[in-house]
Amino acid sequence: MTVTLSCKIHAAKDLRLESEGEAGLAPHEVEVALGAAGICGSDLHYYFHGRAGAFEIREPLTPGHEAAGVVRRTGSAVKGVAPGQKVAVNPSHACHVCRYCREGRENLCSSMRFLGSASIYPHVQGMFRESFVVAESQLTPVNADISFGELAFAEPLAVALHAVNRSGPLLGKSVLVTGAGTIGCLIVMAARLAGAKEIISCDIADHPLQVARQAGATQTLRSDRLTGKELSDIADICIEAAGSKEALATCLQAARRGGRIVQVGTLSAEGLQFPANSVMARELDYVGAFRFGVEFDWAVNYLVSKRIDVKPLLTAQLPLRDAVAAFTLAADKSRSTKVQLTGEAAIM
Amino acid sequence: MTVTLSCKIHAAKDLRLESEGEAGLAPHEVEVALGAAGICGSDLHYYFHGRAGAFEIREPLTPGHEAAGVVRRTGSAVKGVAPGQKVAVNPSHACHVCRYCREGRENLCSSMRFLGSASIYPHVQGMFRESFVVAESQLTPVNADISFGELAFAEPLAVALHAVNRSGPLLGKSVLVTGAGTIGCLIVMAARLAGAKEIISCDIADHPLQVARQAGATQTLRSDRLTGKELSDIADICIEAAGSKEALATCLQAARRGGRIVQVGTLSAEGLQFPANSVMARELDYVGAFRFGVEFDWAVNYLVSKRIDVKPLLTAQLPLRDAVAAFTLAADKSRSTKVQLTGEAAIM
Amino acid sequence: MTVTLSCKIHAAKDLRLESEGEAGLAPHEVEVALGAAGICGSDLHYYFHGRAGAFEIREPLTPGHEAAGVVRRTGSAVKGVAPGQKVAVNPSHACHVCRYCREGRENLCSSMRFLGSASIYPHVQGMFRESFVVAESQLTPVNADISFGELAFAEPLAVALHAVNRSGPLLGKSVLVTGAGTIGCLIVMAARLAGAKEIISCDIADHPLQVARQAGATQTLRSDRLTGKELSDIADICIEAAGSKEALATCLQAARRGGRIVQVGTLSAEGLQFPANSVMARELDYVGAFRFGVEFDWAVNYLVSKRIDVKPLLTAQLPLRDAVAAFTLAADKSRSTKVQLTGEAAIM
Amino acid sequence: MTVTLSCKIHAAKDLRLESEGEAGLAPHEVEVALGAAGICGSDLHYYFHGRAGAFEIREPLTPGHEAAGVVRRTGSAVKGVAPGQKVAVNPSHACHVCRYCREGRENLCSSMRFLGSASIYPHVQGMFRESFVVAESQLTPVNADISFGELAFAEPLAVALHAVNRSGPLLGKSVLVTGAGTIGCLIVMAARLAGAKEIISCDIADHPLQVARQAGATQTLRSDRLTGKELSDIADICIEAAGSKEALATCLQAARRGGRIVQVGTLSAEGLQFPANSVMARELDYVGAFRFGVEFDWAVNYLVSKRIDVKPLLTAQLPLRDAVAAFTLAADKSRSTKVQLTGEAAIM
Repeated sequence: MTVTLSCKIHAAKDLRLESEGEAGLAPHEVEVALGAAGICGSDLHYYFHGRAGAFEIREPLTPGHEAAGVVRRTGSAVKGVAPGQKVAVNPSHACHVCRYCREGRENLCSSMRFLGSASIYPHVQGMFRESFVVAESQLTPVNADISFGELAFAEPLAVALHAVNRSGPLLGKSVLVTGAGTIGCLIVMAARLAGAKEIISCDIADHPLQVARQAGATQTLRSDRLTGKELSDIADICIEAAGSKEALATCLQAARRGGRIVQVGTLSAEGLQFPANSVMARELDYVGAFRFGVEFDWAVNYLVSKRIDVKPLLTAQLPLRDAVAAFTLAADKSRSTKVQLTGEAAIM
Repeated sequence: MTVTLSCKIHAAKDLRLESEGEAGLAPHEVEVALGAAGICGSDLHYYFHGRAGAFEIREPLTPGHEAAGVVRRTGSAVKGVAPGQKVAVNPSHACHVCRYCREGRENLCSSMRFLGSASIYPHVQGMFRESFVVAESQLTPVNADISFGELAFAEPLAVALHAVNRSGPLLGKSVLVTGAGTIGCLIVMAARLAGAKEIISCDIADHPLQVARQAGATQTLRSDRLTGKELSDIADICIEAAGSKEALATCLQAARRGGRIVQVGTLSAEGLQFPANSVMARELDYVGAFRFGVEFDWAVNYLVSKRIDVKPLLTAQLPLRDAVAAFTLAADKSRSTKVQLTGEAAIM
Repeated sequence: MTVTLSCKIHAAKDLRLESEGEAGLAPHEVEVALGAAGICGSDLHYYFHGRAGAFEIREPLTPGHEAAGVVRRTGSAVKGVAPGQKVAVNPSHACHVCRYCREGRENLCSSMRFLGSASIYPHVQGMFRESFVVAESQLTPVNADISFGELAFAEPLAVALHAVNRSGPLLGKSVLVTGAGTIGCLIVMAARLAGAKEIISCDIADHPLQVARQAGATQTLRSDRLTGKELSDIADICIEAAGSKEALATCLQAARRGGRIVQVGTLSAEGLQFPANSVMARELDYVGAFRFGVEFDWAVNYLVSKRIDVKPLLTAQLPLRDAVAAFTLAADKSRSTKVQLTGEAAIM
Repeated sequence: MTVTLSCKIHAAKDLRLESEGEAGLAPHEVEVALGAAGICGSDLHYYFHGRAGAFEIREPLTPGHEAAGVVRRTGSAVKGVAPGQKVAVNPSHACHVCRYCREGRENLCSSMRFLGSASIYPHVQGMFRESFVVAESQLTPVNADISFGELAFAEPLAVALHAVNRSGPLLGKSVLVTGAGTIGCLIVMAARLAGAKEIISCDIADHPLQVARQAGATQTLRSDRLTGKELSDIADICIEAAGSKEALATCLQAARRGGRIVQVGTLSAEGLQFPANSVMARELDYVGAFRFGVEFDWAVNYLVSKRIDVKPLLTAQLPLRDAVAAFTLAADKSRSTKVQLTGEAAIM
């Protein structure tokens, strides 16, 4: 019997590599061998703190929701893919019948199962393992010449495209993006793709801003060094991807009257000052952007067509067995943007 | 020479009735004799505190921005109205050429002159006086059989219609409105006019909720007596018209995933807890609604056609010379909704 | 074994009442006894011409897609309804996974099964029979005191609400509706519900216009007696529910610059003149409205809450066995608006 | 006294070069010396047929509405530009106070004065002359290193950007553009700028399609050689920029259910077949796009920033005195895309 190596977080800073037996396959399920899988901020939170925002680890959790790989086995009813097929994996599995799904907002599905998340219990196990089983409907087959590493950006790029969709049309617009990590830089790319006239990237460190410039920012700013009014009223759209209260304050200052602020980053409520009165008197829109829906397929398309080039964002790839080292590198924002884990398929 | 009696606020609780000489008329200007003018929350703030939000009284201010009256004199280029014509007066005077005006958002005009406001200096004097001069373009002539008192609701009704416009289409939607003062009750009426399926009105006192029921609320709630989860996830749209942090908290709890919260009330930032993370993870829209644009003409239309009946909201009318008593009554929310001042035209 | 009486159209003017054996029930299916079912324009086309637009009868067809009734039997997995429950029946059954469903536009579902329609083969049989089997998800349980006749308007009212949704927000808008049959009058009601400032109803006969006035039209016009320019540039929104090329011409003339025309009626392309250049130079929107999605539930809600009163539209009810007489009456627009067939449940 | 050379069309094929005296300048007016001015389809119609669509030449007309030049003289109240300043000239002059302007749709202004157009009488004279006088508000100053020829594309690029705005967000969308002349190719560029996933350009000749490929089309099609179903249901958005009934038919076939067709080209109603029923049953949007509003400033910005490169579209530049030769070349679509006339400023 085949065994699969899996990263399991048991508690904060307790990540173990464990062997798992081969899972059975329901008729519409597919087993995928890992090519590459990106480490995301929530994965880091699970590893370093045992929780991500409100979601706490209550049983050992395999994280990982940004992956590409190769089909290994297929269930009896699977028709669209066969063993050997390269695929991008969509970690979302929506019910399609709740009111949110019926409104075309499947990212808000009230029965969402999202891979590698402790949001429900038992947890939905993720993709930091040699192979994993998902529904056929979660796979987008790809025949183009694209690396697993690039294809594994489909998920975070989908998040960025969704944030841009929530921004409204960007043609002719000035956009400010706070945070120049992976999501911030992908938002810069997506905003440029959508035709924004001007894209200002803000961060509190230099390395991310260098990457933002490669991503297409027309201006970069060390937001920690601003003395006051430089940013007043300069942006039609602000996208908050840093997840800090200072970054949100920057957005609220930068948005022009009638402008729009899109919250993508995870924010603690603690100590947050929010000028609700200014939202009223300046008639701002402050709106959330959560995960993605149809944008996953768009993301695969833009990656495959090379309209979006994520290579500047990929800092390093390490094999699954070096997961702890990979998590450590990923947490160091002065050196890294995206760090990925690789599996067997990457070697095939 | 004719003299005009005017209410002038010199400082907090220092309101004087003063005589003013007759003003000259520029070619496009019109002098209007006061019929009735409503006292609004910002007028109360000017009177009791010498300021309304960020706007401080720096010279004697005649407040008053909700008025109807009769044309007394017309400038040489005026063509659309003649002496004796009943008119509703729009307190907004936008520039029509700034970027906000060109986008169709004249309420955000960067050169707005709004009657009875200390937002700019010298202040723009308002309509709590026997007669006043405005541009012809600020007048909507009305020939129908409608009282000055009802017609003077055009301005606050325009605010309510604008709040509903910022809510998006209400057909089939559940709406929660916090605050059942004049604006809250007019929003209830406007939401009903726009077809909302269900309208829940919340307040912290009984009298306003009685008025809200007359205004068309399908349910009323004493929000200060809620113990917890009753309101979770019950409304598609929440309109915050109370201007209190507790009311905003109620809205944030009541909005269903993907819902929309419209901020109409003036809110102090002090002590405000704002769950920005919930806006993100529940993908809410939190948007401001400030004053109105084309909705002023709509408001006159709905009042004249009796589609909106404001009579349940009109608590009392007092003559200009009793302004202090009127302000005092207006401030007592346990007894009054809208209190108006009347002028000579009301007697004619 | 129970037998059920069913209206079967074999060909143009060949409607037979036939007995059917009792159907088996799949786990999620429910058998409903007919209360009342309305005869729609497409039913008339099937009966009088053997076809409705592009859809031709290729096997005996039981028409009927506007019905309310009582649950008789339930499949093993049914949880939300029990025998004896009054229900409105949604004739739409969408797949929920195609791209249209995922966009929130289930009315465009590429695998739609719509009751009583020859659009696919084998045809999906409809509800002009004593009892019929549908999926539980197609039922909306109703406990209120409302007649089957009124509840059977849920489907055409859903069509009208969808047409209004496709019109955009109607607050402050002037609306022109061509055709004052059932759908036209329900659109008048829905437009009024949505707050339209002015609603002009046009038809080529007097009886429908009388009904339109009861439905809430603020003005009615015999469009066949207009001599020319009366209608130019008078409406923000025009809703074409007559299905005639003259009516469409009226809409194109009446729409103001930047206005919107919504096509609801079925139109033959033959002899149709369409001023595409005027759509460009006046920047009009000409958009289709097809069936409905979530609006079905809204319709039930507005009927139950009495916000919409359809009684003026209900001309007559005849028992199933008098189907031919009912079809004949329904086709005479000088006397009838909506004619319904009734079943056993109406008697219970 | 300075004299200015001007192209005057007196009637079909009667274009004369005439001398004009120097015009006086009102306080807010500016005299501009011509750099370059593009010949547009409507200019060709005026020259070859004495009319453009419904607009007939009733007095000698100087056409020309796509120009860039240099400020020569300024009126007494002009503050934003000085002699010697390079400028793009916006041919639109809207009233800013009519209902269309107040709605943010100044392109539909009911008192629009558009340079070089016979739409009103007396005609508004255009820019095919050595110098011309316009309002300061029509000028966008440009200090960047950009040729007059490129800058004169601001007007047609604004038309293309407006067409894209009327299309809705293009991220993730498939777009089909009929016609690969100047406007068609600029729409291809604008659709690409706005992030369209796929852009199919159709024309009935090879040369325009070669230019469309340079403009960024991902696929090009000789629409006159299609045999039938190749195009069915392939595009989310179709933009009709050919102005022919065959092209519109292509759009109606190519649009997927729920898709949108934007009419930009001028179309004769004669012989036009329009499947209104398909618009209904497939719930299409068929909408017009007429000229532009704020998009003019966007266009200048994208030209200056080199985000849009119009050089592949500029076939030839001829001096004003060779206007007849230029018009003849411009009319030959097998050889030319955009032909421009140049003035003195181009030589300075």
